[in-house]
Amino acid sequence: MTDFAATKALFDLPEGVIYLDGNSLGPLPSAANARVQSMMTEEWGKMLITGWNKAGWMAMPTALGDRIGKLIGAEPGHTVVGDTLSIKVYQAVASALELNPTRKVVLSDTGNFPTDLYMVEGLLRSMGQGYELRTVEPEAVADHITDEVAVLMLTEVDYRTGRKHDMKALTELAHASGAVTVWDLAHTAGALAVDLAGCHADFAVGCTYKYLNGGPGAPAFIYVAPRHADKVRPALSGWLGHEAPFAFDLDYRPGAGVERMRVGTPPVIQMVALDAALDAWEGVDMAALRRKSVELCDLFIAEVEARCPDLSLASPRDAALRGSQVSFRFAEGYAAMQALIARGVIGDFRAPDIMRFGFTPLYIDETDVRGAVDILQDIMANRLWDKPEYRTRQKVT
Amino acid sequence: MTDFAATKALFDLPEGVIYLDGNSLGPLPSAANARVQSMMTEEWGKMLITGWNKAGWMAMPTALGDRIGKLIGAEPGHTVVGDTLSIKVYQAVASALELNPTRKVVLSDTGNFPTDLYMVEGLLRSMGQGYELRTVEPEAVADHITDEVAVLMLTEVDYRTGRKHDMKALTELAHASGAVTVWDLAHTAGALAVDLAGCHADFAVGCTYKYLNGGPGAPAFIYVAPRHADKVRPALSGWLGHEAPFAFDLDYRPGAGVERMRVGTPPVIQMVALDAALDAWEGVDMAALRRKSVELCDLFIAEVEARCPDLSLASPRDAALRGSQVSFRFAEGYAAMQALIARGVIGDFRAPDIMRFGFTPLYIDETDVRGAVDILQDIMANRLWDKPEYRTRQKVT
Repeated sequence: MTDFAATKALFDLPEGVIYLDGNSLGPLPSAANARVQSMMTEEWGKMLITGWNKAGWMAMPTALGDRIGKLIGAEPGHTVVGDTLSIKVYQAVASALELNPTRKVVLSDTGNFPTDLYMVEGLLRSMGQGYELRTVEPEAVADHITDEVAVLMLTEVDYRTGRKHDMKALTELAHASGAVTVWDLAHTAGALAVDLAGCHADFAVGCTYKYLNGGPGAPAFIYVAPRHADKVRPALSGWLGHEAPFAFDLDYRPGAGVERMRVGTPPVIQMVALDAALDAWEGVDMAALRRKSVELCDLFIAEVEARCPDLSLASPRDAALRGSQVSFRFAEGYAAMQALIARGVIGDFRAPDIMRFGFTPLYIDETDVRGAVDILQDIMANRLWDKPEYRTRQKVT
Repeated sequence: MTDFAATKALFDLPEGVIYLDGNSLGPLPSAANARVQSMMTEEWGKMLITGWNKAGWMAMPTALGDRIGKLIGAEPGHTVVGDTLSIKVYQAVASALELNPTRKVVLSDTGNFPTDLYMVEGLLRSMGQGYELRTVEPEAVADHITDEVAVLMLTEVDYRTGRKHDMKALTELAHASGAVTVWDLAHTAGALAVDLAGCHADFAVGCTYKYLNGGPGAPAFIYVAPRHADKVRPALSGWLGHEAPFAFDLDYRPGAGVERMRVGTPPVIQMVALDAALDAWEGVDMAALRRKSVELCDLFIAEVEARCPDLSLASPRDAALRGSQVSFRFAEGYAAMQALIARGVIGDFRAPDIMRFGFTPLYIDETDVRGAVDILQDIMANRLWDKPEYRTRQKVT
């Protein structure tokens, strides 16, 4: 049994705040600051350049990759950390296209996070004639997996509504029609039980500053299935993905397996913060986490619908079709969210009218959910965002 | 007058160490740890997601870019920080190629840092037929700037020998023959007086963990000349380079000027460490720094040549042709360097036989230079690397 009261104690949340935006930026793990201080003083400060080997900095991208791999059902040794999610999307799609050289369409959906679409747009433009990024409505994806599709690139959980794709079914469909898959797990890793190996996923990418609590700008991760890992030749072929970086050869030779997806010098300070954050996941059973997440989300929906009739649910009602967030539509959602934040309930807003709330069982419990709805109810019933004192406070937040 | 005794006091160098490897990884600035702690506790910990605006995290890439821009002669507003140097090389060369669409050759030299060559190799491979990376000996670059050359990509200072290209002259030659230039300032920024604007450089990139002391894995920077900044469409088109990232449009529209070279979420913790490190540069006159660097390098050469006859100079003797490092060749250089490190003089080794020493006036002075040569002389005169106690100690370093 995972003890969520114990995991909650691993975070220093500010007094008076109910934090429902861990799906955007996870909070500070209590242990992270001391770990970073120690790295800076004892490693960077005292070991200087020798820290790359002595303190193990150089091995961190794969070590952290494996820690994350355990949470997403990856085979050990096939996940590596580095760069940003945008860069990892580019790497994954470029490699996936190379595995499928006779086809030129990347299929995605209009609910995908924009940077994924932008990065592919840039990639295809530099690849020249004939390549196409085709985006369809999320519900229509399955119908558009034709034999033109080289790569199916999807984010499992929609950043606005929390709508969840069926990773296993869509991967099977894609494979049946000869397409390679790239899954973005930005809103999945640390939120859902995932089984990349069991789904036969080809590539997966994700960020570590949301549910994994790695801190603002924490590095991303990339997973490459074992059957592809030694075949792909990275488009972003940096020296730390070279077979022998310190031979300083003039020609690129890809490193073993997923190591070739490393590019430049990794961000050691951020990696140390992430490493500390990942300690909170030791012993957490992802199935238990998912159950708890569903309970919290279902409770929030029930309470809001009972007490705030002006809000209409934007997320799927069926938990099986939803990630770990709940969104409500409200025409004055921006102002209402500002009032909420002023009262200590931090969610966020996505245009045009979505109020978004993330539920993170590591540090959010039922008391938080009820407390948040109490305040939301007060704000909605009294249209508090229209009051002068809230308009003033909005500027502060 | 720049007071180098005062800048030296800004660094906590370990007792008994003479650090001549700041050209690889700069040391910890005394102020950096407290700044990072404060950011983690007061900003990430207390502001949570609102830190992106409240604490100014989102604006840091351009603010830091401008701080670095001052040290390299860039026009304000044309340098931005992010990602790694490898990624920034890719962005710069991809953009430079687009400005010169009728040509297909990228010219570089065999002394360039390998990752620059690897990244271009990967880029050109994905761009398809006809593109070529042509590498010639460093001394032969000028003769190979033909009308086939789309992009001249060079690292100003050779990472092994310290040999320095003439940026102004080669840029003029390139422009005269219709080529666009990309300068890698990895061993330049914080080491030499540079005048990017005065040289009419087109693109420049660099890292911040060497002479700028930003810490292991600190983010890179990219400069785009004002005349190009609004024309190029980045190959790595990420959401934070979008004109309106938080509009979440499905189509990419490049942001204003160099902002379009931003890609994904920037590494805030690393940026805060870098910001603290850049404080040491306030009031430093780059011409004075260069003079001091030349004095230190010349002194080191003179002392080594007088006292260690087995070492032969690998760097240019003429300071005008050299960066801020000095390299010596010695057949048993690897072992000798390990012995030096065991005695507290930290330089580094580059195959096959180069012992490399960086001179960083911010925290290295004449006493350090003489002290380092005293130890080097002892090691060389007595072949200390052959002694058992040194062989044992090597394993520790």
